[in-house]
Parts: sequence; C-alpha cells; structure tokens
Amino acid sequence: MATFSPLVEQLIQALRRLPGVGPKGAQRMALHLLERDRDGARRLAAALVDAAERVARCRHCRTLTEAGECALCASPRRDPRLLCVVETAADLIAIEASGSYPGRYFVLHGRLSPLDGLGPAELGIDQLLRRLAVEPVEELILATNLTVEGEATAQFISEHAATLGVAVSRIAHGVPLGGELEFVDGGTLSHAFASRRRMFR
Amino acid sequence: MATFSPLVEQLIQALRRLPGVGPKGAQRMALHLLERDRDGARRLAAALVDAAERVARCRHCRTLTEAGECALCASPRRDPRLLCVVETAADLIAIEASGSYPGRYFVLHGRLSPLDGLGPAELGIDQLLRRLAVEPVEELILATNLTVEGEATAQFISEHAATLGVAVSRIAHGVPLGGELEFVDGGTLSHAFASRRRMFR
Repeated sequence: MATFSPLVEQLIQALRRLPGVGPKGAQRMALHLLERDRDGARRLAAALVDAAERVARCRHCRTLTEAGECALCASPRRDPRLLCVVETAADLIAIEASGSYPGRYFVLHGRLSPLDGLGPAELGIDQLLRRLAVEPVEELILATNLTVEGEATAQFISEHAATLGVAVSRIAHGVPLGGELEFVDGGTLSHAFASRRRMFR
Repeated sequence: MATFSPLVEQLIQALRRLPGVGPKGAQRMALHLLERDRDGARRLAAALVDAAERVARCRHCRTLTEAGECALCASPRRDPRLLCVVETAADLIAIEASGSYPGRYFVLHGRLSPLDGLGPAELGIDQLLRRLAVEPVEELILATNLTVEGEATAQFISEHAATLGVAVSRIAHGVPLGGELEFVDGGTLSHAFASRRRMFR
C-alpha cells in the first residue's frame, strides 16, 4: 500500500508524539503545513528549538522560564508570606488567571508516583523545604490535584512542613460554582459531604 | 495577569497555527514537550525543517514528494490508461488504502475557488491537459469532492478533457456501504435518489 514520501511520513510520525494527536490529525497537520503554511512550519520549528534549548526551570519556584528567575518570583508585589504548591506550570497559570491569589508559587512538575520514578527528589521537595526554612513563609497552600497521588503528595509535604512551624492548608474541593448537583460526579459529591462546614450552631 | 515566559508563549502560539489545535491544546502540547519530551521537540523541529525545505511536488502528478518523481509515477506497474484527479494528497492516500485503483493520479492541491485565488493555473489544470494530450490516457476519473467547488472543478476539467477525446468519468456518490438510511444526511440521500441506476427493465 502506498504511503506518503519518507520526509512527509517522518513529519507525520513526529507530530503524532504530540499529546492528543492521532494518525489522522497528524496527517492533516503535516499536509496543511506542507500545502499551505510552510512559513508556519519553519516558525514552529524555530520556536521548538528555541524553547527546547533555552527554557529551563526558575531557580526559586521551578516553573518554566528562560530567565533564570521567573517574572512572578522577581516581582516585589507578590506576598512572600504565602507559598502555593502546584503540580504543573499549567496549574499556576490557571490560578493566576483567576486573579485570586497574591502570593508566590512552587511547581513540582508532577506528583509522588514511585512507579513512574517520581520521588521527593524529582519533585524538588527538598528545595521547597529549604525555602520554607529560610524565607518568611507563614502559610503553605497545597493545590495538588485531588487524585490518590496528589493527595499523597500533599500529605507528604504537609508532614515535613509542619516540623518547620509553617501553617499548612489545602485548597477546598467540592461542588464547583454553578455546578448542578444532578450532574456532579459521585466522588466530588461524597467529598463535598465529608468536607461540609457548619453554618451556625 | 501572568502568562508563560516569552519563549513558552512563542511555542504555544506557533502550535496554535496547526489545524484543530486550540489554546488549551497548544498549551498542553508545549508543556508536554518542555516538561517531558524535549527530545521529541527537537525531532519535530528537525522533521519540520527537513520537510518544509525539501518536500516539493511530483513533476508528473503534483503529489507531495522530495524525490522529483513520486513512487507511484515511477512505478511501471501502474496502468497508464487510467488517470484519477483528486483534490489533495490525503485523498490519494485514502484511495490507495482502499486498494481498488490500479492507475495513476493527478493532485490538484485544492479546488476551483476564485475567492481564495484558486484558478485553473493554481490547480495545474494546464499541466493535466498537457498530460492528456501526450500520454496514452483512455479514461480520466474525477474524484474531487461532492461540494459546490468540487463539482465545479470536475465540470471544468471534464469540458476541457472532452475536447481531447478522452473518456471522462466521475466517482459514484451515494449511501456509503453499511450506511443505514435512517442516519444518512438528506443531501446524500437526495443525491442517491437522483443518481439511481435501473436494475432491470
């Protein structure tokens, strides 16, 4: 059966490694770039090389940046008494987009998952604890996801942070705003019940 | 509001130019490459540059190839009496995958669409007619899509090819194999009725 020429096939296979891209999608992308947007292909190649070579982790919070220190860590307007732990740089961006958090961050780039080779060292938890020891952090807010690994990660960090005399909190999980009970999944509902707050005595 | 660092943003914007990739998808791809697959990023960049610089059109059939003449045109086993016109290289691959066509191809890379600047010259129709004049083509099979532009393109080519004494045919359009009438769209159904064939007199 005939296929595309070797270079076109090579491009399709390279595109397939992107998350969420299947064989048809990769083929469509390759043909789009080659038939209609070679300039976009060259620009994407340059952006990939630039980012792959130069983007590293912020030396304070480990988010992705090419600047050594990210804009958030460099900003004097962020409250140094609050430190929020997130799993990924995308989580950090989502929290920033909500505009509800004035403090600083620490990005784990994952969660504790021994089977995937992700232990405390890979997540930079030693670096996090050093920050807690030397910086004026008063509250450590754990915003890892509500999965088995995310919970275990939060638990692990909270136990170590507590020995340093830092208050540790966990973001609330429950029914989302505008979420109708009828359509909320059972796990979220049982968590919402278990974490219920008394309104008056 | 904080965003990613400039190089990460540049990568996200470059990925957004891919067809079917929205802002969230581009962000997910960029973070995946930077956090977990820098090697994949470099390989994709190299594949993009290779393909963008070296892939051109086959001098006979205009499909995408870096070889000057594509494997199908170079093959002595393809029947030179049959020539099939398709809109895109992806259509050619789909027909080859069906294994039902022994002839050669001609790829338009589009359809007649004056508003998009696509006229007969852009689609290589002059080159197609030259092939019909000098090659032993007995039947020209038009496999452009059943859209307004695809039909107009088929009509335009058939009128010119007829003056060269070549038999011109159009692939059949109708209810697909296994398609249940209940779920087939109205346009397809009305075409299936209009193109009905008498079974016995």
